[in-house]
Amino acid sequence: MRALLCDPSLRYDSAYSEPILPPGEALIRVRLAGICNTDLELVAGYMGFRGVLGHEFVGEVVTASDPTWVGRRVVGDINAACYVCEMCLAGRPHHCPHRTTLGVQGRDGAFADYLTLPLANLHTVPDAVPDELAVFAEPLAAACEILEQVHLRPTDRVVVLGDGKLGLLVAAALRLTGADLTLVGRYADKLAIAAKWGVHVRRADVRWAGRSADVVVECTGHPDGFALARDLLRPAGTLVIKSTYHGRLSVDMSALVVDELTVVGSRCGPLAPALRLLEAGLVDPRPLIAATYPLADGEAAFARAGEPGVLKVLLRI
Amino acid sequence: MRALLCDPSLRYDSAYSEPILPPGEALIRVRLAGICNTDLELVAGYMGFRGVLGHEFVGEVVTASDPTWVGRRVVGDINAACYVCEMCLAGRPHHCPHRTTLGVQGRDGAFADYLTLPLANLHTVPDAVPDELAVFAEPLAAACEILEQVHLRPTDRVVVLGDGKLGLLVAAALRLTGADLTLVGRYADKLAIAAKWGVHVRRADVRWAGRSADVVVECTGHPDGFALARDLLRPAGTLVIKSTYHGRLSVDMSALVVDELTVVGSRCGPLAPALRLLEAGLVDPRPLIAATYPLADGEAAFARAGEPGVLKVLLRI
Repeated sequence: MRALLCDPSLRYDSAYSEPILPPGEALIRVRLAGICNTDLELVAGYMGFRGVLGHEFVGEVVTASDPTWVGRRVVGDINAACYVCEMCLAGRPHHCPHRTTLGVQGRDGAFADYLTLPLANLHTVPDAVPDELAVFAEPLAAACEILEQVHLRPTDRVVVLGDGKLGLLVAAALRLTGADLTLVGRYADKLAIAAKWGVHVRRADVRWAGRSADVVVECTGHPDGFALARDLLRPAGTLVIKSTYHGRLSVDMSALVVDELTVVGSRCGPLAPALRLLEAGLVDPRPLIAATYPLADGEAAFARAGEPGVLKVLLRI
Repeated sequence: MRALLCDPSLRYDSAYSEPILPPGEALIRVRLAGICNTDLELVAGYMGFRGVLGHEFVGEVVTASDPTWVGRRVVGDINAACYVCEMCLAGRPHHCPHRTTLGVQGRDGAFADYLTLPLANLHTVPDAVPDELAVFAEPLAAACEILEQVHLRPTDRVVVLGDGKLGLLVAAALRLTGADLTLVGRYADKLAIAAKWGVHVRRADVRWAGRSADVVVECTGHPDGFALARDLLRPAGTLVIKSTYHGRLSVDMSALVVDELTVVGSRCGPLAPALRLLEAGLVDPRPLIAATYPLADGEAAFARAGEPGVLKVLLRI
């Protein structure tokens, strides 16, 4: 089959081996997939991953031990857990130490004709949700994870730092709380997307140190995120770190302790609410689509996705 | 009056001006005071403080606008807030941006014959609590603050890093939760104090990377605290940073985000529950007293307090 590999540099392979279906898993024909910043990081060496890239997808079940799944259009939770270890039994399968992660760790991903995932990971896509919406279910779930971890109140002042695809999706999800939400970014065209959603927007190059935000969500991926966020956060406020990248965050101890800040790392989230938001039309990420490439042009697609300021690049499989 | 000053180095003054009583405040004759690591940091330049040091004390009210306070033995909340700003009105006077802090910022402290504090800050010490217990009310309140901020469950595995006076007091407070509590430290004699309280103890020099703790409380004051704590913390666990000191904490971004850790800065806490715990005998910090000096020997007391491994040094005023 065709596949786009991290080997360890990016490589398109027109004759990659088709996956062998493990018990309890479904064989899925990928329809549409999205390139995430994590994919760019993986190609740059993050996690030392080798194999098929891609973890944002929508596809169709081709083969499954439970035949009721066959033919269904699905998205999937990318973390495949063991469900028998202490962490899984404590209700945290996303943190299973034995987990594999689609296109990230120990498991081939979605930039290929086929992938496999456990049936337990699959979610049927409602008919009303077209592929170009469903492909955002995984990153939107990651945005929903913030709401799983932190209680955002309707009266809160919330700032999202970063107008990349993650920051915009986070803003799209968090605006639904009714909170007083501001997106801080660098690109007028991207800020305009959020402004159309009714989100306040601010240019990052205009200094703004209100120190009045209850919650700041860091989506820039810059190691100086803490210092930026600290200027905005009120004492006893919460900083959510959403960017997955390789590096170190430098935290001013005195600020953290004296101001009693809380810092929360946030990763993958729940797909079911993400699909509900997409189906209800409460989140419409289609303005984030910058381009769609065929899988065979995957290398060009990655080059495009890596350009500064480019939003979501999709791969039509 | 006699006073021990940060000027900016440590200096004993036998003829320092007595405080002028501001409206709404009480004049307090200090009886006993404790030296905290923050005092050592202040003398080293932290916060740029100048004035009378000391924020752990028990004293007797000499003068107050409300005469019912006169003669009472009291401890005091060290943060004097404005009670009219947005932060105060939101119920966070400890984070009032206009606050002064006894012996730390903008307000002379307790290592002197007299201090003043607002009446609103005072708590009457029950008769059953002697001075050498009451003097621990402030640092014990700081330990209680952890329980204000983080829900510790009786089934949690909790690790306290650091067997200094703060780490020991934190262990003394957290053991009351019924949680499976371990104190990690460097000194056999200090660990023995915690062991007598029924706390599990471990030597810091014996590597222990269980990654099974639900909550880790960092009380070592070392900038590598995050790395140490990370070895012990389970995914989605909580790291409480309790050490107030000047420096930067280096946080592995990938660990924070992939493992969805929460980092909570923690400072001053509520005095009323601290007094209740002392009165009930549930916390007895007297084994932490290393020495008691007269105020006039304050410089010797500071030298002693700064020696490695020395626990609480008190000043008899």
